[in-house]
Amino acid sequence: MKYHELREMSEYKLHGRTSPNRYPAPLFFNGSAVEVNVNGSELWIDIEVDFAGIEPWATIWFNGEMVSRLMLTKGRKKICLFRGMNPAAIKNIVFMRETQAMADDELCHLLVHGFEANGIFHSVAERKLKIEFVGDSITSGEGTYGNITETDWNPMFMGISLNYTVMIAKEFDAEFRCLSQSGWGVIAGWDNNPRRNIPAKYETVCGFAKGSVNEALGAAKPHDFAAWQPDVIVVNLGSNDNGAFEQPEWIDPVTKESFKLRMNNNGTYHPDDIARFEKAVIDFLYIIRKNNKKAYIIWAYGMVGQGLTFAISNAVYKYQTDANDMKTVFVQLPDTTNETVGSLLHPGEKSHRRAADVLIDCLRKVVG
Amino acid sequence: MKYHELREMSEYKLHGRTSPNRYPAPLFFNGSAVEVNVNGSELWIDIEVDFAGIEPWATIWFNGEMVSRLMLTKGRKKICLFRGMNPAAIKNIVFMRETQAMADDELCHLLVHGFEANGIFHSVAERKLKIEFVGDSITSGEGTYGNITETDWNPMFMGISLNYTVMIAKEFDAEFRCLSQSGWGVIAGWDNNPRRNIPAKYETVCGFAKGSVNEALGAAKPHDFAAWQPDVIVVNLGSNDNGAFEQPEWIDPVTKESFKLRMNNNGTYHPDDIARFEKAVIDFLYIIRKNNKKAYIIWAYGMVGQGLTFAISNAVYKYQTDANDMKTVFVQLPDTTNETVGSLLHPGEKSHRRAADVLIDCLRKVVG
Amino acid sequence: MKYHELREMSEYKLHGRTSPNRYPAPLFFNGSAVEVNVNGSELWIDIEVDFAGIEPWATIWFNGEMVSRLMLTKGRKKICLFRGMNPAAIKNIVFMRETQAMADDELCHLLVHGFEANGIFHSVAERKLKIEFVGDSITSGEGTYGNITETDWNPMFMGISLNYTVMIAKEFDAEFRCLSQSGWGVIAGWDNNPRRNIPAKYETVCGFAKGSVNEALGAAKPHDFAAWQPDVIVVNLGSNDNGAFEQPEWIDPVTKESFKLRMNNNGTYHPDDIARFEKAVIDFLYIIRKNNKKAYIIWAYGMVGQGLTFAISNAVYKYQTDANDMKTVFVQLPDTTNETVGSLLHPGEKSHRRAADVLIDCLRKVVG
Amino acid sequence: MKYHELREMSEYKLHGRTSPNRYPAPLFFNGSAVEVNVNGSELWIDIEVDFAGIEPWATIWFNGEMVSRLMLTKGRKKICLFRGMNPAAIKNIVFMRETQAMADDELCHLLVHGFEANGIFHSVAERKLKIEFVGDSITSGEGTYGNITETDWNPMFMGISLNYTVMIAKEFDAEFRCLSQSGWGVIAGWDNNPRRNIPAKYETVCGFAKGSVNEALGAAKPHDFAAWQPDVIVVNLGSNDNGAFEQPEWIDPVTKESFKLRMNNNGTYHPDDIARFEKAVIDFLYIIRKNNKKAYIIWAYGMVGQGLTFAISNAVYKYQTDANDMKTVFVQLPDTTNETVGSLLHPGEKSHRRAADVLIDCLRKVVG
Repeated sequence: MKYHELREMSEYKLHGRTSPNRYPAPLFFNGSAVEVNVNGSELWIDIEVDFAGIEPWATIWFNGEMVSRLMLTKGRKKICLFRGMNPAAIKNIVFMRETQAMADDELCHLLVHGFEANGIFHSVAERKLKIEFVGDSITSGEGTYGNITETDWNPMFMGISLNYTVMIAKEFDAEFRCLSQSGWGVIAGWDNNPRRNIPAKYETVCGFAKGSVNEALGAAKPHDFAAWQPDVIVVNLGSNDNGAFEQPEWIDPVTKESFKLRMNNNGTYHPDDIARFEKAVIDFLYIIRKNNKKAYIIWAYGMVGQGLTFAISNAVYKYQTDANDMKTVFVQLPDTTNETVGSLLHPGEKSHRRAADVLIDCLRKVVG
Repeated sequence: MKYHELREMSEYKLHGRTSPNRYPAPLFFNGSAVEVNVNGSELWIDIEVDFAGIEPWATIWFNGEMVSRLMLTKGRKKICLFRGMNPAAIKNIVFMRETQAMADDELCHLLVHGFEANGIFHSVAERKLKIEFVGDSITSGEGTYGNITETDWNPMFMGISLNYTVMIAKEFDAEFRCLSQSGWGVIAGWDNNPRRNIPAKYETVCGFAKGSVNEALGAAKPHDFAAWQPDVIVVNLGSNDNGAFEQPEWIDPVTKESFKLRMNNNGTYHPDDIARFEKAVIDFLYIIRKNNKKAYIIWAYGMVGQGLTFAISNAVYKYQTDANDMKTVFVQLPDTTNETVGSLLHPGEKSHRRAADVLIDCLRKVVG
Repeated sequence: MKYHELREMSEYKLHGRTSPNRYPAPLFFNGSAVEVNVNGSELWIDIEVDFAGIEPWATIWFNGEMVSRLMLTKGRKKICLFRGMNPAAIKNIVFMRETQAMADDELCHLLVHGFEANGIFHSVAERKLKIEFVGDSITSGEGTYGNITETDWNPMFMGISLNYTVMIAKEFDAEFRCLSQSGWGVIAGWDNNPRRNIPAKYETVCGFAKGSVNEALGAAKPHDFAAWQPDVIVVNLGSNDNGAFEQPEWIDPVTKESFKLRMNNNGTYHPDDIARFEKAVIDFLYIIRKNNKKAYIIWAYGMVGQGLTFAISNAVYKYQTDANDMKTVFVQLPDTTNETVGSLLHPGEKSHRRAADVLIDCLRKVVG
Repeated sequence: MKYHELREMSEYKLHGRTSPNRYPAPLFFNGSAVEVNVNGSELWIDIEVDFAGIEPWATIWFNGEMVSRLMLTKGRKKICLFRGMNPAAIKNIVFMRETQAMADDELCHLLVHGFEANGIFHSVAERKLKIEFVGDSITSGEGTYGNITETDWNPMFMGISLNYTVMIAKEFDAEFRCLSQSGWGVIAGWDNNPRRNIPAKYETVCGFAKGSVNEALGAAKPHDFAAWQPDVIVVNLGSNDNGAFEQPEWIDPVTKESFKLRMNNNGTYHPDDIARFEKAVIDFLYIIRKNNKKAYIIWAYGMVGQGLTFAISNAVYKYQTDANDMKTVFVQLPDTTNETVGSLLHPGEKSHRRAADVLIDCLRKVVG
């Protein structure tokens, strides 16, 4: 067995937005991963993990199929990715972060130092299609694991290995990136906290990973869009904004400033706040397009409530018209039902399957 | 066996819009039907059929299940609905028109004169839920029968027995009515013919059935909306308007007036014509609401192309806001794929199943 | 339109065992059919129907897809098979008997006199695979139509258009024949009547069709096996024999002779009667093989109870060993459950689908 | 956090055959597990693992759902089963051995020393139904993980978490035990090695676990059947015996004695060897019944080839008759097809789903 420090390796591929040329390499997002092609009978990965309260989870993929899903505990450690295999065969191995960047845990991080192997690393081929998924807890796969009776917010019940992002990526053999945060929205989080808005973080490497540790890892720096231009961007946002309309006002504990998306007394949305929301959608589309010149942008909505269907569709339409940007589309996803729900009252695997099927149909039209 | 003239019977139910108190009773629409509960061992129906070139088809339902589908040939005739049955049991029998009102065949009509039975007719219970479907060839079930290689426009390949309307009605045990015409749109037909617009016929009994014969049957008269108020109206329109954008100008052979929904040179919709289309959608919603005070209105779109998603969603949204009419919703239906297509390049049974599932989820929210 | 008497036509194909060179041609069995390839815009069939109490039903297939299912009433009549079609195209049309030969109705018969057409008849191609199905009510499709609450024994609820025979034939594009009778078994019917045994009729054209009328049609004559040698024979028998074990003794009303398959007091099968049953299975296999030299023989069992699994499997095994006939196999079919049951407590379409899938897997091994 | 040595705990349940009152407790079999109900926010398990070449894998189940699957590496270690949970809730946790007893690795073992918890252990309820599964690689779940192109025999691709045993146990909420060994048969292994016969090991605790270490753990001792009497025993054996007929003779490297199940030149089974095989089946049934007085015994066969269907069915039938033991049944399972195959040319998850459905139907009849 021989140790290979990642910084000295030439044949590997990092998936997901990360800090360029930084070692050990941070895996910031759900779906962030390191991929290798290697022969030999045995392979270990050398990682470093820390967190205050919310641990990251990982999955291991062998020749394209998930073979392991595991909780990562604190510390630097070696994890065996395979052993006892036919040494001659070249294996494709992906070690993938299963859980989202944890905005509520400033210490949470996962770093890849290197590999220990008794084989030789071979080049990793480029995939033909690149997809970026931007979303909230749905895209973070909250509720895709665990009993449907679970109510505890815990990373055990979260992960992308069974959610629509992986289903779609497998269908097209696509490279994909996720950028998602549970509870966040376009203009505000589920609790009306306006700082929980995805657009504000979109242009950083990983603005969800906070604190000095993550800052040192480069999370807050501007993202280099030029280095990775997706063919398709799926934005699956709006569910938390919709929830916020029914939640109480958010008040900043320090500044006492407040925010609220309002309902009228008759149960309809306040037109001013719908207008604010629509503007946020449009503004976000301009931000996305500015950074992704060629991508087809699909705004998908509907897996957890469909109250903002009109507002989102209308906003995307306005953007499309104003910007004369025809590579934009709105897709309504099937709402989650009693038959398709998972844990934490979130979409289960069946709901993700239904959504993936709708999006696969849509992508097929776009990318052929 | 005893003959019962329909006009003298008290225990039966006519489904579908028809001329009040007219005998023999016309079944104008797909889904129009006569329903009886009857005991005895044998039952025949006495009908009258005529057409110039396009014959109507019918289906027979025994205790809620379809047992027969048949072409109707010209003339007055008796058709056996059942025989050899246990005389004591009360059977629920529906004789249903399978094919749409035929706007292109002025002679086409189907009349019910009466029944021949050796049992007694019992009352037909009211169903709790009433649904009206308004649509085009999709709602007429074009393509739900026949080999996928068929290209002949023929009523054999058309019918509602396997389409989404019947699937939804069965799910909710609902009474339903259809009002649909192949090739027609909101503002114009697939060929840009502006007279092929559904809204213009919505307030008549059956404006699609033309000619002196159908006029005599009362088809062109104003419809009495008060007599039947649906709980839900599903409008599944827009596919032909979308097609018209890509078709040549329509020119009236007599007046030489013309009509065209235009595309821009770059392949986008001309904004003026989108605006005209959106106005037509809004106007239609006002017409529907004027006549149906309590109904939840679902505009469903997407089974055959999705190019007008934004325009329709936006128009429904504008109507909802302008009219302050919250009982309106837009639903995107899954587009038809190679796996779900039927004959005549139209949605097959699988595509209708997918659409029905989406609408069933939607209706469940609305009607509980 | 021109009338074509069948006896003068050269281009057509009769499916199902029938009397050679007899006109009008009898369609004795479920699945018996006349098939033509014809162009022109319109086609009628000229048939003759009679029965005492149990009418036959038919289905119409257009280019391989069922488009109509209808009850046949008494008398000679013309039925329109299609009209209004593109005259140039050659259409493949099958007019098929949907319901079994009716052993309990000596008058029941269905004859084909000819066609009326405005096109030209073209040759009907031979299919590569030939399958014979031998069975009871399951193979007659009893219970595949109608509400699951139905209990009336009526041909309306019976038919092969949705049963496993047609599913299998479609999968392999095979020519198929059925020879089945509701209530009959290998050694006795469900009621212990030993004359209700299929093997006794196997070597006649259609021994189930009794009475002078059917005799005159040639039903009782020896069948000419050489004229049609199947590649596969599926025997789906044993369910009624199993039922007979639990039914009272049968007593001949005239001769007073009696028959009974006995259970022991402890609820097990009486070994002597199991031995008699097994012998009947073996004897039948010898009869089948004598007449079908090359066919693979699949004995399938289990859709309605599985009590005779051991006896049948053992008997087929004994036959295989004794006869050194390796082209024999036993297949257990999934029993019908609450989820898959149809009307009359018989297998519904879902149960037939499950059975068909098992048999399709089996046939694929046999015929490649 | 407090450490609890297993030997001092009263509230836990060991699943699977194991040595009574031995600590640390060995988990010998696939499906062997330790189950606890515990509150508190965090739980770790203290285990000890060793092997020469083939490592064991484990799965973690939280409130009945699998949340983790992981390779176990050598040494004593603590594995976190959950953390960060609501302390008040009582969680049901199962730590399960995923891979079979490894007859080819004398060092391979997995021991449970205890738990580290910050909560209190509560009693584990008895389940109403107990099922024992006896089998080969199918029951060991070989091929249920990994890409279908995999050919490497490696525990990564093996496991019961996706196989029919767990599917059935979940359906009935049953306690279950597995006793299975890849490559073994009733009379001989796939390679004709007659020592690879399951019956010879059935009455020991875990005769597959060899070597001095496992001997010290009690693996070779007689099993105490009285302590756990199953309601149903599913024997899924015969596939390797069938394979042996097509493999060369096995020769003992030491004694030079040989064994071979022979085919005739014409490709049929040699009757003497079929007789030997049938006797082995019958003998095994007597062994099973001797030790399990009340269990319903289901012999299931067919997922990997069906050549011995007759022999097995006949043998079970003979046993049933000879022993007058009516609580025996033969079930044919659907053979694995191209659509349902997994890795290593073994049944994939879909094939296991189909087999489980057939067995679930069967068990439902037996256990209601």
